[in-house]
This record gives sequence, C-alpha cells and structure tokens, in this order.
Amino acid sequence: MRATLIHGAGDIRTGEVPDPQIQQPTDALVRVLRACICGSDLWPYASRPATEHGDRIGHEFLGVVEDTGADVTGFQRGDLVVAPFVWSDGTCDFCREGLTTSCRHGGLWGRDGVDGGQGEAVRVPQADGTLVKLPVAADSALLPSLLTLSDVFPTGYHCAKTAGVNERTTVTVIGDGAVGLSAVLSARLLGAERIILMGRHEARTDLGREFGATEVVTERGEEGIERVRELTGGDGTHTVLECVGLEPALTTAFGVVRAGGTVSRVGAPQYDKISFGFPDFLRNITLTGGVAPARPYIGELLPPILDGSIQPGRVFDRTVRLDGVPDGYRAMADREALKVMIAL
Amino acid sequence: MRATLIHGAGDIRTGEVPDPQIQQPTDALVRVLRACICGSDLWPYASRPATEHGDRIGHEFLGVVEDTGADVTGFQRGDLVVAPFVWSDGTCDFCREGLTTSCRHGGLWGRDGVDGGQGEAVRVPQADGTLVKLPVAADSALLPSLLTLSDVFPTGYHCAKTAGVNERTTVTVIGDGAVGLSAVLSARLLGAERIILMGRHEARTDLGREFGATEVVTERGEEGIERVRELTGGDGTHTVLECVGLEPALTTAFGVVRAGGTVSRVGAPQYDKISFGFPDFLRNITLTGGVAPARPYIGELLPPILDGSIQPGRVFDRTVRLDGVPDGYRAMADREALKVMIAL
Repeated sequence: MRATLIHGAGDIRTGEVPDPQIQQPTDALVRVLRACICGSDLWPYASRPATEHGDRIGHEFLGVVEDTGADVTGFQRGDLVVAPFVWSDGTCDFCREGLTTSCRHGGLWGRDGVDGGQGEAVRVPQADGTLVKLPVAADSALLPSLLTLSDVFPTGYHCAKTAGVNERTTVTVIGDGAVGLSAVLSARLLGAERIILMGRHEARTDLGREFGATEVVTERGEEGIERVRELTGGDGTHTVLECVGLEPALTTAFGVVRAGGTVSRVGAPQYDKISFGFPDFLRNITLTGGVAPARPYIGELLPPILDGSIQPGRVFDRTVRLDGVPDGYRAMADREALKVMIAL
Repeated sequence: MRATLIHGAGDIRTGEVPDPQIQQPTDALVRVLRACICGSDLWPYASRPATEHGDRIGHEFLGVVEDTGADVTGFQRGDLVVAPFVWSDGTCDFCREGLTTSCRHGGLWGRDGVDGGQGEAVRVPQADGTLVKLPVAADSALLPSLLTLSDVFPTGYHCAKTAGVNERTTVTVIGDGAVGLSAVLSARLLGAERIILMGRHEARTDLGREFGATEVVTERGEEGIERVRELTGGDGTHTVLECVGLEPALTTAFGVVRAGGTVSRVGAPQYDKISFGFPDFLRNITLTGGVAPARPYIGELLPPILDGSIQPGRVFDRTVRLDGVPDGYRAMADREALKVMIAL
C-alpha cells in the first residue's frame, strides 16, 4: 500500500510500504478515509536527521474497519471509526482514570512497528480500547469535524478543561493555529463568555471570532501582555490557554494570567527550562496541561458535532490526496495553510 | 517598646522602637503574647546586607487587642486574636475569592511603616479583614497551636489543598521542617491514608509519623526518588507537597510524582528557572501552590485545634523571651531547633 514517509527535515515522500496485517488478537485493520497533518508533525519536518529508508508519520485518521483480531469485541468489518493520537488498552488504571496517554500497554502511531496515520491503511493495536465508532455514513459531510476528534479538538479541549475554564472565568488563548482555535471553541463550549485570542493572522483570528473569541490581540511579547492587561483592568485573565509550545508564548502566558489563575499548556514544549520562580509563586499561579488524553474526551465532544452545533472541522482550509501530502507539509510550514486534510 | 530588628545577615538584635499608635480608623493595636520565627525569616538572616538602623522583622503573632480605630467593628479591647502573615482588607475581589495574599489594599508585616510581629506590640492595618478572634483565655494551653494559624499550619494546608489531597490520593511530602510537618498533618486532615515523608532528621520525622506520615524516606536526590518509586510500584504518588523551596527539592518532586499528578510548592522559591519541559508535559504533571492565603483557612483549621483533635503547635520545640530571639534565630539556622516560639 502507499503511505507517507519522512526521510528527514523538509523531505516528505509518498512511498510503498507493506500492507498491514493483524498481528495480535487485539488488533484491527482500518482503511483510512481521512487523515491530516498536525502542527506537531512540523517539528520533525523542521529538524529530523536524514535517513535512507524513511519513517512512517501521521497520527490523526478516521476510516473503515476491514478486519479484526479474535479478541476484538467492540468493532466489526464496515464500522466507521476514529482513532485518537495515542493508542491505549482502555482497561489499565491510567485508562480508567482517563489518562490514556499514560496507558500501561499503549503507544504512539508510526513507531515500534505500528503504522503511521498518513497512509492507506493502519493496523490498530488495542482496538477495543483505542477506536471510537462514528454513527455516520462514510460520505457524511461531518467527516472533517469528526476527524478533529483524533487530536486537535481534544487537545484544545484538554487545555480549557485543565485550566478550569467555566462560565465564571475569563480566558486568554495564546496562538491562532488550529490548536489555539480549537481551544477557543472549547472554552466557549465550557461556558466562557470572555475569550481574548492572541494571534496576528487575520483569516485565523476571524475564524477564532466565529468560534467564540470576543477580542483579538495582535501584539506580541511585552506589548501583547500590556494590551491584555489593559483589556482586563490591569489584572489579566483567570485562565490562559498556551497553544504554541515555545518559551516566549509561556512567558506571555505568565504575563497575562490573573493572580490565583491557571496557565494550561498543550503546545508540545520546545524548551526544557522555564522562568517560574518567586514572582509567580507570590501570585499563586498554577501551570498545568500536557499531552491530551483524547480518547476519553471523544465521548463528550461527539454529540455537539453530530447535532451540528459546533464545526471544529472548519480548521481545515486545504485538502490534498495522498500524493499531495508533501506539498501539504510545505504549505503548513510556510503558513499558507492552517491545517491540511488528506482525503484518500 | 522593644522589638526584634535585623541589622544584616546573622545580626538580629532586640532594640527600642517607637510605640505603635492608631494611624487609620481601620487600625487596631495588638499587644503580642506569642510570636515565632519562620523558616522564611532565615533567608534574610542568611543574606540581608548590613544596615545601621535595623529593620523590623517577624510576621507570626497572636495577642490581645489594646485599642481600635473608629471604623473597626469586629474587635474590641481585650479580645484575643491571631494575625495571618499577610494583612488584608477582607472586602476586595481577591479577598472575597479567598486569595487574601493578593488583597488590593493589603501588605506584609515589617514593611512600609507597618510593624514586624516579633515585638511587644503591633499596629494592625485593616483589622477587621486581617484579625481572627480566638475563643480561649490568654493563658490557654492551646496558644502554641493557635499561633501556628498565623502561617506555618495554613501554609502546609495550602500545599495539601492546592495539590488536591483527599482520601483517594497518595502523598509525598518533601521536607521535614515545620512546614513539611504541617503539610503531613494537613494531608491527614484531608483524608490521605498514605503519606510518605522525605526527611533525614529523626526527631522531626518521628513527629511527622505522629502527625500522620506512614513511611519515611531518608535518602535524597536520585536515591530518594528511587526509594519513593520502589514504595509505589514504580509510579510515584498522586500528589507531592514541596515544602523546601530549593531547586533540588523541586527536581525530587517531579521525580516522585505519578503521571497525571500534581506538585504543590509552598517553600518560598530560591530559584528563578526550573526544568519543566517535554518529559513532564508528556506525563501531564501540574505545578501549583504559592504563598498561602492563611486568613480564609483559619476558619477551617480553628475547630480541630479547639476540640483538641490536632496539635500543630508541637512543631515548637523551643521557647525564648524577646531578648532570646537572636539566639532563637541562631538555633533555627543551625538546625538545633525546629521552630522557636517567642513568649512575651
């Protein structure tokens, strides 16, 4: 079959790989209908050392079950399913607590003999714990929004949830990428009435307004902090959703959070050390967040997509076929595209 | 009157200062009965530049109201009261939310013309918001435990509360100082059944066991982390209460916290930068805590002291008169004394 391979920084190719097969009785085979490119795929795209063979890549997909191992009880051939970006058994103590990203028998797509998501088919380990059935037809107009359930939407939602967003909290969202916009949508879903979006790409912040942002701050750094403080009587907001992952974004987050407030980060940190000492201690600032356990969130987020009340799939502004994936990476890296969907 | 003055690192003196007087209609004058020396007083004791005049010091005291300003309605002459270590108006938005340490009209003892607590009397600004009446006689045997309400006990309690300690969480407490032991007592009060105390001073960890610690780990650094992990099946504990304030203690905290867990810090940070990047992000670790808003906690913590079910005052292992305060600092700095009470 054909799949996306990364051969090094800037070098994405569509190539031939072996067809996946059931290996464990808990596996399922899924033929991919839609996949997409993640902001986090751009980190290896920027820096991965060159390899001859190429590595599988991609961790967001939905598709149709083609085959199941003997122990899989929850799915059968023909089911339309979405996969979260981490596979997990659904039964260990961490999974039962909702932290599927720390599953004792789980792992990542595209590693250790597990397929990447940007290809024609995927062997899904721990299928019963991992997959979620989608009650729509394979040609449903909802597919783009349902595809966001695999990563970007639950990631934004995790940010808002762990920050403690509710109808009484003011919110700043840092970053107008697809995660930031998903965080705006999530904050609105959780009842926030005042959502300040920090971003400077007008088409993106316009979508942010449609998702629920009440104000947009285009300034960055000290100026951006100053502007959010002006908008909030000098105090900052109760919650700050950091959706970038770079140190300056975190510095901005601490600058715009109100005393007693919470910064949540879901942008994969591209830093080791952070400034978080005495001044933030005196103000009782909490730093939370982390990699989103998407699987348990899907149940919460599926109904408002199915009933049409939210359309998180609007973050996709470009669709490519499998052989267009290399150009999709380029477009996202060049900020030509917000988020690229792959239709197989 | 006489009061404690710090003239520089290692130079604490008892000296003459002007008698305090009512300056604002919201002030009260309190004659101090008991005060104490805080672990945080040891930071200026270790490093304050020398001064000719000497600065007031001390922020933990209880005493008797001697006079009140015209606007004070909650107290009258003769009332026995305890003061939290930050004074606050009790009416601003932060105070109403329980974050009295961020009060819009509050401040610290011993600064900006406000008396320090280690002296014969104190002018208390914002008396109605700051003070709490103690329903006992001035010669009550409960005074030591009631004195802990001004700082050390609510600080330990804040650590346990913000960490989310409850009957279902396992707990590690880092530090066997008076704050660490108060954190143990607080974790027990909040229902924790398994409390691992990291400390190496046997007399202190013995008191920790009486306060509720179920295990003591004497090793530090990597060895200490290893030991706590061994005790918890490799996972670490759900909550970690960091009661030291030095970077190695925080590193230990991240090392012993379970995935999805929370580190709370109440030791005043003696660091600016911390290592809190991708590995902790992947494990969904939260860092919370901060300077404790003692005032609102006093109402929760007073009843179990009054009914004798807890005795947080056992952290005091030495009592001095006012002229013995310099030696009290020395004894705490030399770790001869755990916490020194001042009886006036």
